[in-house]
Amino acid sequence: MGRKCIIGQSGGPTVAINATLAGVIEGAFNNKYSNVYGMVNGMQGLLNRNIVDLEKFKDKNKIDDLMHTPAMFLGSCRFKISGEESMYSQIIKILNEYEIDDFFYIGGNDSMDTIKQLNAYGNKIGSSINFIGVPKTIDNDLMHTDYTPGYPSACKYVATSLLEVAFDNAIYPMKSVMIVEIMGRDAGWLTASAAIVNEQYPNTVDLIYMPETVFNKEEFVKDVQSKLMIKDSIIIAVSEGIKDETGNPISFDSGIKKDAFGHMSNNGCSGYLKQIVATEIDVKVRAIELSTLQRCAAHLSSVVDLNNSKKIGNFAVECALKGISGDMICIEFNNNEFVLNHVDVNLIANYVKEFPLEWIDNENRTITKEYIDYIIPLVFENGSVDLPRFVTLND
Amino acid sequence: MGRKCIIGQSGGPTVAINATLAGVIEGAFNNKYSNVYGMVNGMQGLLNRNIVDLEKFKDKNKIDDLMHTPAMFLGSCRFKISGEESMYSQIIKILNEYEIDDFFYIGGNDSMDTIKQLNAYGNKIGSSINFIGVPKTIDNDLMHTDYTPGYPSACKYVATSLLEVAFDNAIYPMKSVMIVEIMGRDAGWLTASAAIVNEQYPNTVDLIYMPETVFNKEEFVKDVQSKLMIKDSIIIAVSEGIKDETGNPISFDSGIKKDAFGHMSNNGCSGYLKQIVATEIDVKVRAIELSTLQRCAAHLSSVVDLNNSKKIGNFAVECALKGISGDMICIEFNNNEFVLNHVDVNLIANYVKEFPLEWIDNENRTITKEYIDYIIPLVFENGSVDLPRFVTLND
Repeated sequence: MGRKCIIGQSGGPTVAINATLAGVIEGAFNNKYSNVYGMVNGMQGLLNRNIVDLEKFKDKNKIDDLMHTPAMFLGSCRFKISGEESMYSQIIKILNEYEIDDFFYIGGNDSMDTIKQLNAYGNKIGSSINFIGVPKTIDNDLMHTDYTPGYPSACKYVATSLLEVAFDNAIYPMKSVMIVEIMGRDAGWLTASAAIVNEQYPNTVDLIYMPETVFNKEEFVKDVQSKLMIKDSIIIAVSEGIKDETGNPISFDSGIKKDAFGHMSNNGCSGYLKQIVATEIDVKVRAIELSTLQRCAAHLSSVVDLNNSKKIGNFAVECALKGISGDMICIEFNNNEFVLNHVDVNLIANYVKEFPLEWIDNENRTITKEYIDYIIPLVFENGSVDLPRFVTLND
Repeated sequence: MGRKCIIGQSGGPTVAINATLAGVIEGAFNNKYSNVYGMVNGMQGLLNRNIVDLEKFKDKNKIDDLMHTPAMFLGSCRFKISGEESMYSQIIKILNEYEIDDFFYIGGNDSMDTIKQLNAYGNKIGSSINFIGVPKTIDNDLMHTDYTPGYPSACKYVATSLLEVAFDNAIYPMKSVMIVEIMGRDAGWLTASAAIVNEQYPNTVDLIYMPETVFNKEEFVKDVQSKLMIKDSIIIAVSEGIKDETGNPISFDSGIKKDAFGHMSNNGCSGYLKQIVATEIDVKVRAIELSTLQRCAAHLSSVVDLNNSKKIGNFAVECALKGISGDMICIEFNNNEFVLNHVDVNLIANYVKEFPLEWIDNENRTITKEYIDYIIPLVFENGSVDLPRFVTLND
């Protein structure tokens, strides 16, 4: 009998997580694993024995389709394993029932914590199962990896959509403001990608507001007014997580009832900023929330991102075959090449990679060239900015 | 000296209107026009003599870029020419200054009214200028043309985005509702395109609400509840223009101040529907407004749409060369072929093509097969539905 492995996905969707899943499955079958299982809805599914055999992905065409499928093929969960010994032993019991050699968990910070705990428990009881973490998150906030799969594709969507929205907003000979709200509750990683647009189309995205710097209403009004002095159509990119000087989130209190999870996605900061512009400046103003579109737009995925995500999956299997456990796969970009490696998950779980403050040009409400140099090779295959080529009257 | 023409664009943006502009320019230069002018911001620009020479588009590469540029290269206006004789004579005076032979105006219903009035005035004073209307609008509501350029591309964006959002929404093992608000104040043409998704992925878009049928809150709650009985993740497509039994728009009164144009784009019906779901059903609920993204997403344009739009532009020049004036170019789809023609603009201006009521299956909140047969060849090159190919656990 060959080796057997099980794979789970957890956390929020990206367009690249299934490419990583495809990579693990492909890697396992290429290495003569006899069985590749998937846990449906992550740890929650495993505990419920909701486990599927992924044999059909021996078909290369199916692997290709999986690679381009957004969100999570195996489903996700909001379930965090607790510190109770009974739960760990139950998990190991189920894994042993399925004769699992290698356990792969694809996700973000919480998922790496799961790997950390399972590996520690496995070591304690002398289990031979390898527990390997595989990164993904559009938040790009995992330590010890140059980026997280899914983030470059989300950046490509944000930049492309902002560019198109800017063209749309500029058609009338009048002052107008467009506010685009981008995901990121604690960090501005994704919002920063708005700056990509200006690399190919200078002065297109006019103001960028990040959660790393304090949002001040009066300054905001002044920022918008001064931009409107020099051009008619203003584009503002804003992170959903911007906060005031006391750390309170900026949001529009519409009085709408929150859902069971406290989500208020249509009443975020862009609604509030829109109200400020309408009342304090009184020009035409619109707000768009990119909402889940920005993390599920497979039709705008980055080829670099998808290809690397798959390779990361392949590499995770190689690591398992070497008996590595308790590590997360990481990716480095050195000398124009992507290099795969693995890092002790203890150095990753429960830490957060902050957006470098020195990359924020807060005076000009923009992002510095250092970020551009960092992000471009992750998003565009040829290593230089390659947004759609549009013409304007001023060309 | 060769012929001279001037081109204007008006109304709201689409991703195809510049393809039509490219077609007119290309057609004119191919037919040895000596000068091709553009009016910047439509009639408003013409009256201000804000006129540009489009000679640089003799370069074929520039024509290709223009063809793929969204929104309006020449800018738009909200300006309607009045019935005053002095304005008409001023327009003719400026056109004569530039020795214009042919006047092309690309737009929707208001633009066709401009053509109608200018042609009538031209006839009255014996002007030799040909006035030709060229259609575009994502609203698809112009008479005597099988569709309007821009509409198929917007449909492709709506269907693709809904599909991706549906994958995103389905990842958790819990009841959840996603409401997607689509443009269309008076007609559900664009919202109907949500039904395209189900052609390739059955039962993905669960409920479609059109402005053509009365929206009733109690029925809506029942609709959602009954769908949630049979599946966890519900996708609802709703037209921004849905109305109650008295004809009042359904919208969420958030107390936010309207902008100078009365726009409330982030507080439309989806906010209200979200509130209903949150309070009456109490499941996880999100709402997304596709906003201007749906009309400017050049990266998801329909090849059929762009190619036809350009041909329509070419054909408009052919018509002008035949001395046709006061007509709008129209397109028919017969026996799997697109055929171009022209129709008296008097039969078009100020009329509206309604969405056929018999294409609405109001009992099941869906759109009938007749619409699918109509829309598929307009959106997909091979004539059959061709959304991205994604895999699911149930495949």
